[in-house]
Amino acid sequence: VPKTNGYHKKIDVTKYTANGPESAEASIIIESPMTIFVNGEELVTLLCLGRGLEYLTAGFLWSENVISSKSEIDSIVPDYGRGTVQVKIAKDNAFIKDLVFKRLVTTACGKGSSFYTIDETAAKLPENTAEVLFYAADIISLVAEFENMSELHEKTRGVHSALLARGREKVIFHDDIGRHNAIDKVLGHALLTDVPVSDKMVVSSGRISSEVLLKVAKKGVPVLVSRAQPTDLAVDLADRLGITLVGFVRNGAMNVYTHPHRIS
Amino acid sequence: VPKTNGYHKKIDVTKYTANGPESAEASIIIESPMTIFVNGEELVTLLCLGRGLEYLTAGFLWSENVISSKSEIDSIVPDYGRGTVQVKIAKDNAFIKDLVFKRLVTTACGKGSSFYTIDETAAKLPENTAEVLFYAADIISLVAEFENMSELHEKTRGVHSALLARGREKVIFHDDIGRHNAIDKVLGHALLTDVPVSDKMVVSSGRISSEVLLKVAKKGVPVLVSRAQPTDLAVDLADRLGITLVGFVRNGAMNVYTHPHRIS
Repeated sequence: VPKTNGYHKKIDVTKYTANGPESAEASIIIESPMTIFVNGEELVTLLCLGRGLEYLTAGFLWSENVISSKSEIDSIVPDYGRGTVQVKIAKDNAFIKDLVFKRLVTTACGKGSSFYTIDETAAKLPENTAEVLFYAADIISLVAEFENMSELHEKTRGVHSALLARGREKVIFHDDIGRHNAIDKVLGHALLTDVPVSDKMVVSSGRISSEVLLKVAKKGVPVLVSRAQPTDLAVDLADRLGITLVGFVRNGAMNVYTHPHRIS
Repeated sequence: VPKTNGYHKKIDVTKYTANGPESAEASIIIESPMTIFVNGEELVTLLCLGRGLEYLTAGFLWSENVISSKSEIDSIVPDYGRGTVQVKIAKDNAFIKDLVFKRLVTTACGKGSSFYTIDETAAKLPENTAEVLFYAADIISLVAEFENMSELHEKTRGVHSALLARGREKVIFHDDIGRHNAIDKVLGHALLTDVPVSDKMVVSSGRISSEVLLKVAKKGVPVLVSRAQPTDLAVDLADRLGITLVGFVRNGAMNVYTHPHRIS
């Protein structure tokens, strides 16, 4: 029987060193399939870390524009044993059927991640004009702390993390197997607990591609930070959408790719 | 005008150090949308590194079971300018329509990454009984070399890589924005150039989740190596499918999670 705390577990492995093989224990992350049902209709199955499922669900539905505010959510009930989340939202059946159908068509045609959809999505978004000012030195120390905030990553070296922060103030932090899920958890947590995001930054342990940039931009977050470098498409979108994009935070320095007026 | 070589480009950024802001250059990766058309029907749009598109396409179609051998491919014609790949395969129109429809339904219901599909996929796969033997010391040095093989990663810190290797012999190597794409490129390259994979290992720069494990297992690769730790679901599947799963390769040591008989 594996020892587990629900998010990671210890298993027996064969460890090879210069001295040859030996028995050892390893901590690995538990990957849980979670199926989201909206008003009884199956919407999607996510592979995730089975913690904070209500936040992941709220964030996912918010990201996918299924809901636009907390008030539209009647209830979110995770069943960790079955790997399901039952969501009730204040929308009629026609909306839900249409949603499932649209998800079907969008994903099927590959438009879910196509250039045209990226362009269309970006064209619909207003430019972010939030006036916030963060100190570069604060971001650099925040990212250094962020690197060590995940106890699970410390144990398993297998999770991504995301953080909602204001200056050096760490507001909401979550881990997940996927970088998208970690960001959805943070944004969903903010939504459900009425924490505004338009005066804060999101820090991600993952690379910033166009999809991640759009996810954060759509919710009005003005500053996105990553230890890694963004892609050119993410930089283009950040430029067009008024998002301050920070990356390559390491060795006491960082790059600001777009809209440096929010950095002092 | 940005300086570019097609895969990465230099852009002007504001760099913040302890001495304050300064103008600097950063190399970032170019993220290209690529739409795959099969016999004229639009199948999917991938966001990827615009290099080796014929390998990515072949690997993607092989992974998704659209084709089962090289002989089914009549032609793969990438158009790097337009971001399209036109594929002709020896299948009739009904098959293609069905394929697009199935992709639609599978993805839509979220079954594309659901537990049930994982279980169903795993149940259909034969156990891998390939008899290969790799030296732990070889894998450890290979991974150390692998870390420095990507010139693009060196420049941009923004790509994933995958390597097909036999012992210390590096056979096929590819970069991409996504870890799935990098593995698809390696497997597609092997398919198109008649390189057998059942006597080799795949090394990935990414984390090993159930989806990555299945992708590699389906093609008969007996050994999968990553610097990171796998998830529990990946370990379960590797155990059931006869795959030797190696991870946590660092500091001159490595863990073997399943089927250590292939490691000496």
